Amino acid sequence: MISSLLSAAAGHSVDHVPVWFMRQAGRSLPEYRRIRGSGSILDIVHSADLAAEITLQPVRRYGVDAAILYSDIMVPLAAVGFGIEITQGKGPYVKEPFRSESDLARLRKLEPETDMPFVIETVKLVVKELRGSETPLIGFAGGPFTVASYLIEGGSSKDYIKTKTLIRTDPLLFDRLMDRLAVMAVDFLTAQVNAGAAAVQIFDSWAGVLSAAEYERFVLPPVRFIMDNIARLGAPRIYFSLSASHLLGHIATTGCDVMSVDWRMPLSAVKNQLKDTPLSVQGNLDPTYCFAPWEVLRKEVLQILAEGGGIGHIFNLGHGVLPGTDPKVLHRIVELVQSVAPENLVKQV
Amino acid sequence: MISSLLSAAAGHSVDHVPVWFMRQAGRSLPEYRRIRGSGSILDIVHSADLAAEITLQPVRRYGVDAAILYSDIMVPLAAVGFGIEITQGKGPYVKEPFRSESDLARLRKLEPETDMPFVIETVKLVVKELRGSETPLIGFAGGPFTVASYLIEGGSSKDYIKTKTLIRTDPLLFDRLMDRLAVMAVDFLTAQVNAGAAAVQIFDSWAGVLSAAEYERFVLPPVRFIMDNIARLGAPRIYFSLSASHLLGHIATTGCDVMSVDWRMPLSAVKNQLKDTPLSVQGNLDPTYCFAPWEVLRKEVLQILAEGGGIGHIFNLGHGVLPGTDPKVLHRIVELVQSVAPENLVKQV
Repeated sequence: MISSLLSAAAGHSVDHVPVWFMRQAGRSLPEYRRIRGSGSILDIVHSADLAAEITLQPVRRYGVDAAILYSDIMVPLAAVGFGIEITQGKGPYVKEPFRSESDLARLRKLEPETDMPFVIETVKLVVKELRGSETPLIGFAGGPFTVASYLIEGGSSKDYIKTKTLIRTDPLLFDRLMDRLAVMAVDFLTAQVNAGAAAVQIFDSWAGVLSAAEYERFVLPPVRFIMDNIARLGAPRIYFSLSASHLLGHIATTGCDVMSVDWRMPLSAVKNQLKDTPLSVQGNLDPTYCFAPWEVLRKEVLQILAEGGGIGHIFNLGHGVLPGTDPKVLHRIVELVQSVAPENLVKQV
Repeated sequence: MISSLLSAAAGHSVDHVPVWFMRQAGRSLPEYRRIRGSGSILDIVHSADLAAEITLQPVRRYGVDAAILYSDIMVPLAAVGFGIEITQGKGPYVKEPFRSESDLARLRKLEPETDMPFVIETVKLVVKELRGSETPLIGFAGGPFTVASYLIEGGSSKDYIKTKTLIRTDPLLFDRLMDRLAVMAVDFLTAQVNAGAAAVQIFDSWAGVLSAAEYERFVLPPVRFIMDNIARLGAPRIYFSLSASHLLGHIATTGCDVMSVDWRMPLSAVKNQLKDTPLSVQGNLDPTYCFAPWEVLRKEVLQILAEGGGIGHIFNLGHGVLPGTDPKVLHRIVELVQSVAPENLVKQV
C-alpha cells in the first residue's frame, strides 16, 4: 500500500490526511536530549547510528506519516570544507563568510559517497527500520537562497544586508554562488533518494525576505534547476518558505509538487491562488498554537483540515516545532488529524 | 500652498512625489549622535527642545517632505507608568510584562496634557519652526497589536509565543487590552494633531506575524476604532505594517487614508489589490538598498516611482532606516525623487 504522504503529494485520495512536523526530531523530545550528548549537531550527523535513531524517535512516539532525516541544511557545506559550525539552538556559524569570487573555489562539487558517507548510511539505516511500514523517509536540502544567506552573512541575520548588497553589487557572482548551491542541492538530494528517501523537501525558509522581483530574478531559476534535475528520481518535491505570501505565484512555477506554506494565509486561499497549477499544499498550523489550550488548538487543526479539503493536503506546521513544545500536544495533533475521514472535510468548512 | 505629502495622501496631483523616511531622525545622523547625550530615548523625549531639534535635523539635512516626531511608540505606556525602558538600538523593555486581568489596572487612561506635556511642547516647537514652509509634521502612535506584543513579551520577540498564547487562552482579556491601547492611541494622536501635527502614522509593524483570520478578529476592530475616532481631526491617517502582503485586503478596510507597505510586493500590485478602495500608498524601498551602488539604487527608486504612478504615492522605505546607512545616500534619494515630474511616471513603467 502506498503511503498517505506520497498519495497526498500526488493529489490522490487518502484514507487520512498525512501529518508530520518540521523539526519533529530533536530538541523537543526528551529521548533525544537523553542520547544527544554534548557535541555539536555536526557530531551527531556524523554518527549514522545516532542520527538514524533520532530520525526514528518521532515516528515511534507520534506515529507521524513521515520520517524526516535528522540533519541540517549546512551539512553539505561542512562536507566540502567551507568551515561551518552548528550549535544547538543558535543555527549555523560560518567561520569565513563568502565575500568575493575567490570564495567560489571553496565550494567544490559535493561527492556524497566520499564526502558524506555517514548521511547515506543514516538514510539506509532509517529506511531499513521503516521497511514494512508505510512510513516514507523525507530527505532534504536547503534552498539555495537560504544557504547563500548563511554563507554570506556568516550566520543568522535580521536584515540580510550583506546578502542583498551582494545581489545588487555583483549579481553575476551571486548567480554563480546560487548555481553552485543548486548543483550541490541536486547532488545531496539525489544521494538521499538513491539511498532510499521517498520524498524530498527544499527548505528555503528565508526566501520570503526578498521582493517578488528579486525572487523571480535570482531564486526562481536555481530552484527550478533543482526541481528539474531531481524530477527523474520520482520522489515528490516539497518546497518550503516562510512569510512568502507574495511569492506563491512564482513558487508555483518552480516545478515543485507540494508547496509548504506558513500560517499567514488560509490553505483555501493558497489553493485558490494556485488554481491554474494544481499543486498539493503542506501546512499550516502556526507552531505557537501548540501552546494554546487543547480545545482551541483542536478547533484550529480541524479548521486547517477543512481548508485543506482532504485531497492534496499534507498536514504540518507553518514552521518548525518551537523549543518548549510539549510532545504530548504534538501526539494529540497526530491522533486528531489521522482520525478525520478526508471525505468529510469539504463539508466541514 | 498645500504640502505635497498632504496632497498625495488625498490622492490629489502633486508637483513631485513626496518623500520622507521612517527613522529619518536619530541614530543614522551624526548631528543626532553629537547632541543625544548618554541618556535613554525616554530622557530625550522628555526634553522638548532636544526632541524638537532631533525631529528637525533630517528636514534640514535632506529636505524631506515631512518631519516625523522623534518619539517612540511606547512613550504613552511609559507616561501612564507601565514601567518601560527604551535603550538605543535594543527596543523597548517592559519591567513587569502584561500577564493577567489585574494588569489592566496599570493601563489607566492617558491624559496627554498632564502625562506628556513634553510631547505636546515638542510638537508645538517643531510646528513653529516649520511655519512658512510646506513641510508638515507627522504625528504617530503604535498600532495596538504591536504595542500589546511588547507589553506581553516584555520586549522584542521572535515568535510572539506569549502574545499569541494570550490571544488563544483569554481572547476577551486580549480584546480588553487592545481596546485600552486603541483608546490610548486615539488620545495620543489627538493631542499631537491638536498641537499642530498635520498627518499621523500608526506603526503596527508586527501585525504581519498574525494569520489573516486572527488579524481580522483581533486587530482590525481596534485599528478601525482608532481610525474612526481620529477621522474628525482631518489629518491623513497612514497605517504601516511589515510583511503583511496577506493582510492588504483587511488593512484596506481599517479606514486608513494611506497604506504603507514593505518592499515585498510592487506598488502596482498593491494598488491593483486595492482597486475597490482607492487608498494612497506609501513605500516601498527595501532599506537594505541604501547599501547598494548608486546606479542600482537609482534604478530601483525610479522603478518604485513608476510603480507608484505619480498619484496617491508617498515615497518612503519599506521599513526604518537601518543603522549604518550613509546619510548622503538618503539625501541623494530625496533629490532624485523630488526631481522627477509625476506626470512622466506612468510612461516610465
